[in-house]
Amino acid sequence: MQPRPGNQLFDAYFTAPAMREIFSDRGRVQGMLDFEAALARAEAAVGVIPAVAVAPIEMACQAERYDFAALAEAIGSAGNSAIPLVKALGKVIASGVAEAERYVHLGATSQDAMDTGLVLQLRDALALIEDELAQLTDVLAKQASAHADTPLAGRTWLQHATPVTLGMKIAGWLGALDRSRQRLAELRPRLLTLQFGGASGTLAALGDKALPIAEALADQLKLGLPEQPWHTQRDRLVEFASVLGLVAGSLGKMGRDVSLLMQTEAGEVFEPSAPGKGGSSTMPHKRNPVGAAVLIGAATRVPGLIATLYSAMPQEHERSLGLWHAEWETLPEICCLVSGALRQARIIAEGLEVDAERMRRNLDLTQGLVLAEAVSIVLAQRLGRDHAHHLLETCCKRAVAEQRHLRAVLGDDAQVSAELSAEELDRLLDPANYLGQAKAWVERAVAEHQRFKA
Amino acid sequence: MQPRPGNQLFDAYFTAPAMREIFSDRGRVQGMLDFEAALARAEAAVGVIPAVAVAPIEMACQAERYDFAALAEAIGSAGNSAIPLVKALGKVIASGVAEAERYVHLGATSQDAMDTGLVLQLRDALALIEDELAQLTDVLAKQASAHADTPLAGRTWLQHATPVTLGMKIAGWLGALDRSRQRLAELRPRLLTLQFGGASGTLAALGDKALPIAEALADQLKLGLPEQPWHTQRDRLVEFASVLGLVAGSLGKMGRDVSLLMQTEAGEVFEPSAPGKGGSSTMPHKRNPVGAAVLIGAATRVPGLIATLYSAMPQEHERSLGLWHAEWETLPEICCLVSGALRQARIIAEGLEVDAERMRRNLDLTQGLVLAEAVSIVLAQRLGRDHAHHLLETCCKRAVAEQRHLRAVLGDDAQVSAELSAEELDRLLDPANYLGQAKAWVERAVAEHQRFKA
Amino acid sequence: MQPRPGNQLFDAYFTAPAMREIFSDRGRVQGMLDFEAALARAEAAVGVIPAVAVAPIEMACQAERYDFAALAEAIGSAGNSAIPLVKALGKVIASGVAEAERYVHLGATSQDAMDTGLVLQLRDALALIEDELAQLTDVLAKQASAHADTPLAGRTWLQHATPVTLGMKIAGWLGALDRSRQRLAELRPRLLTLQFGGASGTLAALGDKALPIAEALADQLKLGLPEQPWHTQRDRLVEFASVLGLVAGSLGKMGRDVSLLMQTEAGEVFEPSAPGKGGSSTMPHKRNPVGAAVLIGAATRVPGLIATLYSAMPQEHERSLGLWHAEWETLPEICCLVSGALRQARIIAEGLEVDAERMRRNLDLTQGLVLAEAVSIVLAQRLGRDHAHHLLETCCKRAVAEQRHLRAVLGDDAQVSAELSAEELDRLLDPANYLGQAKAWVERAVAEHQRFKA
Amino acid sequence: MQPRPGNQLFDAYFTAPAMREIFSDRGRVQGMLDFEAALARAEAAVGVIPAVAVAPIEMACQAERYDFAALAEAIGSAGNSAIPLVKALGKVIASGVAEAERYVHLGATSQDAMDTGLVLQLRDALALIEDELAQLTDVLAKQASAHADTPLAGRTWLQHATPVTLGMKIAGWLGALDRSRQRLAELRPRLLTLQFGGASGTLAALGDKALPIAEALADQLKLGLPEQPWHTQRDRLVEFASVLGLVAGSLGKMGRDVSLLMQTEAGEVFEPSAPGKGGSSTMPHKRNPVGAAVLIGAATRVPGLIATLYSAMPQEHERSLGLWHAEWETLPEICCLVSGALRQARIIAEGLEVDAERMRRNLDLTQGLVLAEAVSIVLAQRLGRDHAHHLLETCCKRAVAEQRHLRAVLGDDAQVSAELSAEELDRLLDPANYLGQAKAWVERAVAEHQRFKA
Repeated sequence: MQPRPGNQLFDAYFTAPAMREIFSDRGRVQGMLDFEAALARAEAAVGVIPAVAVAPIEMACQAERYDFAALAEAIGSAGNSAIPLVKALGKVIASGVAEAERYVHLGATSQDAMDTGLVLQLRDALALIEDELAQLTDVLAKQASAHADTPLAGRTWLQHATPVTLGMKIAGWLGALDRSRQRLAELRPRLLTLQFGGASGTLAALGDKALPIAEALADQLKLGLPEQPWHTQRDRLVEFASVLGLVAGSLGKMGRDVSLLMQTEAGEVFEPSAPGKGGSSTMPHKRNPVGAAVLIGAATRVPGLIATLYSAMPQEHERSLGLWHAEWETLPEICCLVSGALRQARIIAEGLEVDAERMRRNLDLTQGLVLAEAVSIVLAQRLGRDHAHHLLETCCKRAVAEQRHLRAVLGDDAQVSAELSAEELDRLLDPANYLGQAKAWVERAVAEHQRFKA
Repeated sequence: MQPRPGNQLFDAYFTAPAMREIFSDRGRVQGMLDFEAALARAEAAVGVIPAVAVAPIEMACQAERYDFAALAEAIGSAGNSAIPLVKALGKVIASGVAEAERYVHLGATSQDAMDTGLVLQLRDALALIEDELAQLTDVLAKQASAHADTPLAGRTWLQHATPVTLGMKIAGWLGALDRSRQRLAELRPRLLTLQFGGASGTLAALGDKALPIAEALADQLKLGLPEQPWHTQRDRLVEFASVLGLVAGSLGKMGRDVSLLMQTEAGEVFEPSAPGKGGSSTMPHKRNPVGAAVLIGAATRVPGLIATLYSAMPQEHERSLGLWHAEWETLPEICCLVSGALRQARIIAEGLEVDAERMRRNLDLTQGLVLAEAVSIVLAQRLGRDHAHHLLETCCKRAVAEQRHLRAVLGDDAQVSAELSAEELDRLLDPANYLGQAKAWVERAVAEHQRFKA
Repeated sequence: MQPRPGNQLFDAYFTAPAMREIFSDRGRVQGMLDFEAALARAEAAVGVIPAVAVAPIEMACQAERYDFAALAEAIGSAGNSAIPLVKALGKVIASGVAEAERYVHLGATSQDAMDTGLVLQLRDALALIEDELAQLTDVLAKQASAHADTPLAGRTWLQHATPVTLGMKIAGWLGALDRSRQRLAELRPRLLTLQFGGASGTLAALGDKALPIAEALADQLKLGLPEQPWHTQRDRLVEFASVLGLVAGSLGKMGRDVSLLMQTEAGEVFEPSAPGKGGSSTMPHKRNPVGAAVLIGAATRVPGLIATLYSAMPQEHERSLGLWHAEWETLPEICCLVSGALRQARIIAEGLEVDAERMRRNLDLTQGLVLAEAVSIVLAQRLGRDHAHHLLETCCKRAVAEQRHLRAVLGDDAQVSAELSAEELDRLLDPANYLGQAKAWVERAVAEHQRFKA
Repeated sequence: MQPRPGNQLFDAYFTAPAMREIFSDRGRVQGMLDFEAALARAEAAVGVIPAVAVAPIEMACQAERYDFAALAEAIGSAGNSAIPLVKALGKVIASGVAEAERYVHLGATSQDAMDTGLVLQLRDALALIEDELAQLTDVLAKQASAHADTPLAGRTWLQHATPVTLGMKIAGWLGALDRSRQRLAELRPRLLTLQFGGASGTLAALGDKALPIAEALADQLKLGLPEQPWHTQRDRLVEFASVLGLVAGSLGKMGRDVSLLMQTEAGEVFEPSAPGKGGSSTMPHKRNPVGAAVLIGAATRVPGLIATLYSAMPQEHERSLGLWHAEWETLPEICCLVSGALRQARIIAEGLEVDAERMRRNLDLTQGLVLAEAVSIVLAQRLGRDHAHHLLETCCKRAVAEQRHLRAVLGDDAQVSAELSAEELDRLLDPANYLGQAKAWVERAVAEHQRFKA
C-alpha cells in the first residue's frame, strides 16, 4: 500500500510520546491480536480447540506482521477494524500451520476483539496517567511546602483581595489532582473488564463451555469478568473519559493561574526557561507560557470530546452503528491530550521560577487596600459590622481619591485612631500577619497526599 | 416587585417536581440562609459571637421572608446572589434584634454562602436521585428476572442477529445503573464538603478561631471539612455532574431500545398506556413513546451541559468571574433533567407491556438466517471455519434469493445434510436453543444488584 | 392548579427582560395561538372553513385565557405542548360559538403549531437582537474613533508586545459583531419560514386546497413558504443558534479583554461604576467586573447548548422523539443568554472608563523592551535579520539583567550607536511612533460599520 | 528524526483522502510556505526587499525540503509551528543564496504565517466540500424525482403515520444540503481573508509600506483584505466550522433515515452492496449500514468539536495562549469528518437500493390505521371535529382489539356507513390517494436546486 500522509505536526507539543504510541495503529492492532491470542489459549485450556493450535495463532498475533495501510482500506468496506484483521490473521496463520486457522476467533464477534483490545490499551494508558499523576503530585506537594510562607496577593474577580500564599495556591492544584487519583483507583475495576459476548452477546456459539472460556480468557488477560457483555453499555469507558476530563480541567486551572502570574504586569511566577523555549519570532525579549498553553488547550478541547462520548451512549440494541464508531478516535484523543498536559504540568511544576520579591511589591499595588478587611474585622467587633464597613469604605475611597496609602489615611482618621494604635495599624497592614489558615491548608493537602501514597 | 414571566411549561414533562423544588428560587435562598444560620451557631459555640445573637439570626434565616424578585434585581448589580441576600438578611435581623445584625456572615465571603448553600441543595438532590435509582433498579431487576426466558431477535447495526432475551436486555440497563449508584456512593464524601474560606480562602478574618469555627460549621451542617476551600477547584461539582451524565446516558440507551422496540414494524414492547398519553392530534390510533422521548431528550441535552461545566473548570486565582457564573444554572439543570428522566424510566419499567408472541414472529423475519451462526459453528468444527463460513454464506444467499426458509435450503444441501441430520437442523434453528448465557447474564446482574442493596 | 416554584433568581442578571418575556410560558402559548388564528383566517380565505368561524377562533386565541400550570401537567401526558393547547382551545371556542370549534387546527399537526409558533417568537427575538447589536455597534464605532490615538501595550500570550491603540482593540470587537449582523441578515429568509405539513408533512388532509392555504397562511404570518415542511430538517434553527453563538463568542472576547484590563495590575480600563455595583461583601474597595462576568459566562454556556442542537439534528423520519424535545428549552436559553450579554456589553461600552495615563505607564513596564522590534527592524535593514535579531537579543538580555531601560543599553552599545543616532533611538522608543496601521484599522472597521447601516 | 507512530487506521473509513491530504503535515507546512513566498513577492513588488531575493525564497518554500519530525519536536519548545519553520526556512535559503535570508518573513509574525496558511488550506477544503456537495445534491435531486411517486409509511415518533413518498424524503435531505451550499457561498468572502498584522497586529514594522504590502500580499494569494487583522477575532473560522456542522447534521439525518429503513423489520431501502461490504464476522447473511455509520458517526462527533471552537473564541488581547492552540487540530478534524461523511453519502445516494414492494406491504402493517386521518378529515367536515375524531378512535380501537383491517371495521360501522359509501372508503384507504403535496415538495426542492446551479 502507499504510505499515507502524516498528520502529527503537533503531537510532540500536545501529547506524551508514550501515550501516542499506545494509541498508534500498531497499538490498536496489537490490542486486538492480544485478545485473539489469549482467546486461543483460553479455548485450548477449556478443551474447545486443540492445544497445538495455540502456538501458530500466538505466532501470528504480532502487529508487525500486518500492513496497516491495507487494513485501513479494508476497514472502509468492513465497517470495523476487527473483520479485516481477523481475515488477515487467518491468512497469516494458514501460511504457517494451515489447520490452526480454523481455531482463531472462535465464538467471538468483532466488537469483542475491538473492545477488549481497547481495554488493554486503556490499561496501559491508565498506568501511564497514574504514574504521571504520582510524579506531578509529588512535585506539587514539595513545591507547596517550599512556598508555604510566600505571600502574594489573593485575586478574586481578577482584582486584588486579601493575601494568600503561593504554597496554598499550589496546594489547591495538588488537592484536585489527588482527588482524581482517588477517582481513577475507584473506577479501575469497572474499566478493566473483559468484553466477550459473541454475535449478540450471549456467547451462544460456545455452548456450555462459554462461561469457563470467558473466565479463562479474563484470567489470561488479567481483566475482570463483567456481569454481562457491555457492547452497548458504554458507561465504563465514558466514566474513564470523564475523570480524565477532571484532570484536564484541574490542569487547565493550573495553567490559567501560571499564565496570569506570568503576565508582564504581574511577573510573579514563570515557567522554567530553556533554550529556544517560548521565544517569539518578532519580540526577542519575550518568554511565552508555552507549557501553560498546552494545559489551557487541553482543558478547552477535552470537554467537547467528552460531550461526544456522552452523546454516543444511547447505543441501539446489541450493537450500535455510528454511536459506537464515534468513540473510536475520541477516547484515544482524550488520553493523548491529557497525557500531554500532564507532561507539561510536571515540567512547569519542577522548574517553577518564583519572584517572591515581586509578589511583595505587587501586594502593595493597592496601597494597603487589600488589607482593609483586616482592619474592618477588628473595628467591626468594636463598632458593629455596618459602621465599620462604612468607615473603612470611606477611608478606602479617600485613599483612592487622594492616591495615598491606606495606612496613612487610617492614621489620619479620628474614629480609627480612637480605636487602633499606630502599632496595631502597622501590624494589621502587614500581609504576613494576615495569612489566616494558608499554612494549615498546605499541611492538610500534603497530609492527604501522603495518605494516598501509603 | 412585579411578578416575573414564568417559563415552566415543560417542567412537568421533563423534570421531577421535587427536584425543581430543590432548585427553585426558594431552595437556593434557603440553602444560603441555612449556611448563615449554621455559621452563627458555630461562631457562638466557639465564642466568637455572643450566644444571644444566634436566635435572632436563625429567625431571620427563612426564605419566605425575602422578596425573590427584588433579590433578582439586586443580583444584577452585585454580580452574585449572596451579597444582596446578606444585605437583606441584615435588615431583617436588625428589624428584630438590632444588635444581632453585626454578627451575621462574620468572616465569610459571598461564595462561601453560595457554594455551601449549593452543596446543601445537592445533598437533597443526591438523596432524591439515589432513591429514584434504588426504586428503578429494583423494578428492573424484577423485570429482568420475569423476562429471563423471553427470546427476541438480537439486533446489531439495527439488523437481526442471533437471539437474545428481553431479560438480558433489561439486565443490561440494570447493570449500568447499578454501577452509577456505586459511583454516587464513592463521590458522596468528595461532594458533600463545606465551603468556607472568607475573602481569599484563608479565613484570615477569623484569626486563630478560624479552624475551630470551620470544624463546628461543618459539624452543624453535617458536611465534610475539605483539605482547603475549593472556591476555584470545582472538580467536586463537575464529578457529580459527570456521574449524573452517565445516568442520563444509560437511561437514554434504555429509551432508545424501548422506542425502537415500539416501532410499528417491531411492536415487541410498549410503554404503559394511560388515558390521553401519547395520543396524536391527527392520528387517533397512535401510541407515542412519550416517556422514551424524555429519556432520549435528557441524554441529548445533558452532554452539552456537562461540557459547559468542564469548560468552566480553569477558574482564575482565588475566585473566578464568568466561569463560576456559568455553573449557577447549569448544574441544577442537569439535576432536574436527570430526575425527570429517572421518573419516566420508572413509569416505563413498572408498566412495561411485552408482546412475546410478536417477538417470536419477528424472530422468524429472516426465515432462519439469524440462526445461521448456530449451524456455522457446528459445521466449522467439522469442515473448518472458512469452509463452513462459505458454505453457510452460500446457503443464506440462496435462501434470500429464493425467498425460502434457511431450514429448507440447508435441508436440501448435500454437504450440510452429510454433516447434520434433520433433527439436528431443527434443534439448531430453534431460537430457544440458542440463547447461550442470556440467563446467566440476568442472574449475574441481579446478584450484583442484590449485593449493592445489602 | 397550584402555583409552581419559580426559578428565576439569575434572570435579571443573565438575560434581557424583553427576551425572557418572548420565551415565557405566555410567549410560547401565544405563538401557537397566533398560528391557529392565522390558520383559521387562511382556511376561510381559501373557502375551506366558513368565514363566520374565524372571529370566534381568533377571540379564543389569547394566551391570557389559558391556565399554564394545567397545560404544563397535560404536556406530561401528551408529549408536546400543542395537543393539550388545541384541546383547551377547542373548549374555549365551544364555550363561545359551539359550531366554530370544529374548524380549528384543521389539517395541521401539533408540530406545525409548535414550530410556527416558535418561528414567530424567533422573529421577535431576532428583531431584539438586531436592535441591540445595532445600538452596541454604534457605541463601539464611536468609542473606537474616540480612542483611536490612545496607545496601550499590545499583549500576546499575555506578555507585553509592541504597542497598539485602544481604538484598534475596540474596532476588533466592532468588526466581529458587524460580521454577525451581516450573517443574521443573510439567514433571516431561511429562518423565518412557515412550518405547515400536517400529520406526515404532506398536507394530505387538505386535499387540493393545501397549497393555497399554505400560501395564505404564510402570507398572513408574513413568513416565507419553504420548499417543503421541515419537521425533521432543523438546519434553519441550528443556523440561527450558531450565529448567536458567534455573537456570544465575540462578546466573550470583549469581556475577557475588559476583565484583563481591569486587573489591579493593569488598571487601564473599567466598567462604568454604579451604586452598589461590583462591590464585594468583604472587600470594600473592590470594583468587580460584573458585566464582563456575564459576557464570559454566556460565552462559556452557549457552546454546550449549541452542541446540543447540533447533536439533535439527525431526527428520525417525519417526526423525531427526544431529539426534537431536546430543542424546546435549549434554543430559547441561547436567545436569552445572548440577549443578556448584549445588554451588559452595551452598558460596558457606553460607560467605559479609560485610564490613558496608566496605559502609558504600563507601556514602560518592560523598560523599552516592547519597542525592541522597532529598533530591530531598522537594524535588520542595515545588518541583516539574524545579526540585528541577535544584537537586539543581547541588548534586551543585558537590559533585563542589569535592570536598565533598553534605551540606555542601546545608547551604550557601540554597534547600535554606529548605526543609530540618539535622536533616532529616542524616536524609535516612543510608542506613539510605533503604532503602524492602528488608526487605519479603526477607520476601516468604522467605514464597514457605516456601510452596513446604509 | 525517528519516524513517528502512525495513527491513521480509520482514515480511509471516516475521511476523504483528498481532505486528509490537505490537512497533512505537508499541507500545513506548504500553507505557511506559500504565505512566506507570497510575502516576499509582495514586498519586492512594493520595493521593500530586493527583487533578486524573491527567487531564492520561493525555491526554499517547498514543503518537501523540510523534516516534519524535526519540526514537530521544535514546535514543542517554540509553542507554535511557524517559529521553527521560519528558522528552518532561513537556513535553507541561506544554504542557497545567503544574502536572501535576511528578507524572509519581514514584518510578519508567526500567527500571520499560520493563519494565512490555514486559510489557504481552508480554501482547498471549501472547494472540495462544495464540489462534493454539488455532486451529492445532483444525485439526490435525481433520486428524489425518480422516487417521487413511491409511497411508503410516514413515521412520526417512530410510529406509522399517514403515507409519504420516498422522493419527498430524499427531497428533504436535498433541501437542507442546498441551503448549506448557499451558506458556504455567503461566508466565503468572510472566510477567505488574509491574516497579516505583525507582532501586535499593527504592521508597525513595515512603516508606511505596510498597507501597500498587505494589499499586494492579499492580491498575490487571491484573498480578501480584512478590515483589520483577526488574530484574536476567530468568528470567521468558527462560522465555517458551524456550517460544516450543519452539513454533518443534515447528513446524520440522512444516515439515520437510511439505517432505520434498512432495519430487518423495515427492509425498504438499502445501501448499495459491494464485495465484502458490511459483512459481519459472525453473521454471514447480514448487510450492515456501514456508510450510514459514518454519517451518524460524523454527526455525533462534530458537535463536540464545534463546541470546542466556540469555547475558544474569547481569546485574550492581541494573541491568545491555549485557546488559539485548541483550534489547530480541531478545525481540520471537522473538515476531514465532514468530507468523509459526504463521500459516504454520495456512495449511498448513487447506489440506493429501493424495495418499493416492501414499502407497500409495510404500509399495510397497521391494517389501514395510518389512513384513519383520511377518513377522519372527511367525517369531520360532516360530523364535527370532535365527533369524527372520537368515532374514528373507536373504530381504530376496535380494529386493533379485533385484529381486523380498519376498512372492514369502518364498513361495519353504521355511523360511518351513513356518511361514506364503500367506494369512498376504498378510495380513502388507498395510500396512493393520500399523498397530498408530496410531489409538489419534490418539485419545489428540485427547482430550488436547479436555481442554485444557475
